[in-house]
Amino acid sequence: MRLRNKPWAKDKLVEHSAYVIQNPTEHKGKWHDVFGNNHPIHIEVGTGKGKFVTGMAKANSEINYIGIELQISVIVGALDRILEDPLPNVKLLNVNAEDLLDIFDSGEVDRVYLNFSDPWPKNRHEKRRLTYESYLKLYESILVKNGEIHFKTDNQGLFEYSLTSFSQYQLLLKFVSLDLHNSTFEGNIMTEYEEKFANKGNRIYRAEAQFRN
Amino acid sequence: MRLRNKPWAKDKLVEHSAYVIQNPTEHKGKWHDVFGNNHPIHIEVGTGKGKFVTGMAKANSEINYIGIELQISVIVGALDRILEDPLPNVKLLNVNAEDLLDIFDSGEVDRVYLNFSDPWPKNRHEKRRLTYESYLKLYESILVKNGEIHFKTDNQGLFEYSLTSFSQYQLLLKFVSLDLHNSTFEGNIMTEYEEKFANKGNRIYRAEAQFRN
Repeated sequence: MRLRNKPWAKDKLVEHSAYVIQNPTEHKGKWHDVFGNNHPIHIEVGTGKGKFVTGMAKANSEINYIGIELQISVIVGALDRILEDPLPNVKLLNVNAEDLLDIFDSGEVDRVYLNFSDPWPKNRHEKRRLTYESYLKLYESILVKNGEIHFKTDNQGLFEYSLTSFSQYQLLLKFVSLDLHNSTFEGNIMTEYEEKFANKGNRIYRAEAQFRN
Repeated sequence: MRLRNKPWAKDKLVEHSAYVIQNPTEHKGKWHDVFGNNHPIHIEVGTGKGKFVTGMAKANSEINYIGIELQISVIVGALDRILEDPLPNVKLLNVNAEDLLDIFDSGEVDRVYLNFSDPWPKNRHEKRRLTYESYLKLYESILVKNGEIHFKTDNQGLFEYSLTSFSQYQLLLKFVSLDLHNSTFEGNIMTEYEEKFANKGNRIYRAEAQFRN
């Protein structure tokens, strides 16, 4: 994504700390307190402008959602979406996915969503892909037992890679769709990218992978 | 496939028993004797008219190939192909895949190929798919340790199903291509179906799955 410089964005995030949680490491092990209930917590790693995470929060009021996005100029779009239509069950974190272990306790997260992650197509950038082994290890560390990763992308190479990476990590593939928008799958909430790429006629790929721990 | 009745076909198979091995259960544990060497044995389950298995045999003289096909009126086409261009490293078996255990000893087969298998799209026919659990168990029983299944199809539903079935069986997905003919994969030998469907513009899917035994 081409990022515009938005020098005011950082202040805006801090200003709305009810939605963009500041100092998230302080809430490690206590995220249910942040939401004020014991509902399951689902996180989206790379939440972008938040269309998915807010759409899911609206559709599933009994689940708490946390959207994680490193790019300030992008996450501010997700904040705008929440400010337009506030929901009690969605929060944002402006952090790096590499820091997940400092933010969530073991078993604190019930599901991880990865949507249209950066494909990093060059072999030498494999380690940056959010479905690379080291990331799977992070997700496993914060997820409940038999926790799941739900993954969507329009990038064929990233999907092929991710299937083999999931398998290498001995995750169970519970669901695979090679053309989500022409399938019987119900309740799909689209991301910004998904809408754009599907309109271009790109196939959308989707998988659900479960840890066997 | 629409099958034509070919009453003469059975006799023809018997007549050419050098290529279409009769009473294959008698060779269980002794297939290297049939070929007269100790080269690895690769089998194709559902070999159809034999374009793949003969193409592979020609390209890989140091590997022995066995094409298995239940339909007499189809396998006779594979026999014709061999008679036109005889090769010492390819044999045919007119048997049911369900009988693999009676034909091959444990560890006697080095690789299983499945190409454009019948998709059996109805849920109630799941058990007939050649990537169903009970077939994977058969392949595992006759394959070497860490043996592999190499699978191609143009059928999206069968490929999706097979990926989840492989995963359920804890097979390792070593390779996945969601568009084989537009990939960097080299040395692909096409089947009759593959040529036909690829010419129609259908995508060809391919996976390599390895047993972790």
